[in-house]
Amino acid sequence: MGKVFAAIGVSVDGYVAGPNQSLEHPLGEGGEHIHDWMLKTKFWHEMPWVGDDGGETGPSDTVLREASANIGAYIMGRNMFGGGTGPWPEPAWNGWWGDNPPYHTPVFVLTHHAREPLVMQGGTTFFFVSEGIESALKQAKDAAGDRDIRVAGGAATVRQYLNAGAVDELMLHVAPILLGRGARLLEGVDPGRIALRIAETVAAPDVTHLRYEVTKK
Amino acid sequence: MGKVFAAIGVSVDGYVAGPNQSLEHPLGEGGEHIHDWMLKTKFWHEMPWVGDDGGETGPSDTVLREASANIGAYIMGRNMFGGGTGPWPEPAWNGWWGDNPPYHTPVFVLTHHAREPLVMQGGTTFFFVSEGIESALKQAKDAAGDRDIRVAGGAATVRQYLNAGAVDELMLHVAPILLGRGARLLEGVDPGRIALRIAETVAAPDVTHLRYEVTKK
Repeated sequence: MGKVFAAIGVSVDGYVAGPNQSLEHPLGEGGEHIHDWMLKTKFWHEMPWVGDDGGETGPSDTVLREASANIGAYIMGRNMFGGGTGPWPEPAWNGWWGDNPPYHTPVFVLTHHAREPLVMQGGTTFFFVSEGIESALKQAKDAAGDRDIRVAGGAATVRQYLNAGAVDELMLHVAPILLGRGARLLEGVDPGRIALRIAETVAAPDVTHLRYEVTKK
Repeated sequence: MGKVFAAIGVSVDGYVAGPNQSLEHPLGEGGEHIHDWMLKTKFWHEMPWVGDDGGETGPSDTVLREASANIGAYIMGRNMFGGGTGPWPEPAWNGWWGDNPPYHTPVFVLTHHAREPLVMQGGTTFFFVSEGIESALKQAKDAAGDRDIRVAGGAATVRQYLNAGAVDELMLHVAPILLGRGARLLEGVDPGRIALRIAETVAAPDVTHLRYEVTKK
């Protein structure tokens, strides 16, 4: 069986987004700099919305490729999928990623609002799960078989799965910035429920990748 | 001229101490585990209060030795020096470290309560500075000459010097533990005042050493 993992960018002071998140600043003020390192990788430049030959190979590029190499299903929160809160809008919101999203597997979207599966190009199908995180995880495991499941985000979704003891690995991409205020990834993660062990540390000039094995206490 | 640096252990969720600090739990509940990695080093075992041949060499031992190799003066807060708060008690509190403290240089203790310098064995003299952090830094620079100054702690003292733009390097020893509550090192450090750059990343099995260059904005 594959592993369940989460990989998320944070500032040195632990934020996944800066203060005052808005349409103009979806990652909060300054929060976009959490991902500066990623935008420089070749992996990112190969994404359909960039689609050029730019970007650098190196440790961060390798980390991104290895993390995505064996994924059989994704789980994400409604906010990450987008389309606002509440009942689904008309015309239908089909995600941020265009006709060919970068998942190429089933993606299970946690929502309070049921919706028919959404089949996209390139192998991505979004399934909308309104029965809670355990149901989404079970469906993802059935879909992924012996491949990995990535809890893609956002932070609240990652936290819920961490506290449920359902995450096997947590990768933090620590960017050398301070945000001071905003949304903290690990705020509310219960140290009584899970323990960490260092699995791998990957150094880069502009980010540090900390991979932890997570076990249920 | 030497550099001004701080080096401090933190949990993955950013705490330097756990909740409910007390005489019984000076680092808060669970906070002592922030330093588990250090207690295993040969460097630690050489300290006079351990004083045996145990402990391991390796990356963490090297990090500790390199950080302390060129120090010409220390600065610490009153809480780190100890002796409670308020006027100095009688008989005099002379620190936690016995007759031969592990500093072997001048140590400038920030306090609201003036006191005569305290000369210890092995080259350590504690000077008590009641004129504020800038005065302590100036005195430390005069004493250190071209050697380094370490802002030893605690967290509040490190934060004050960070926000003053007076710290050249910040080393975080990130322990693979979660504390959930307690005292956060970087809470209240102002991202408008300082910027970070990755200077060095040192991986170990039980801790990750993140060294940042700090510049004033």
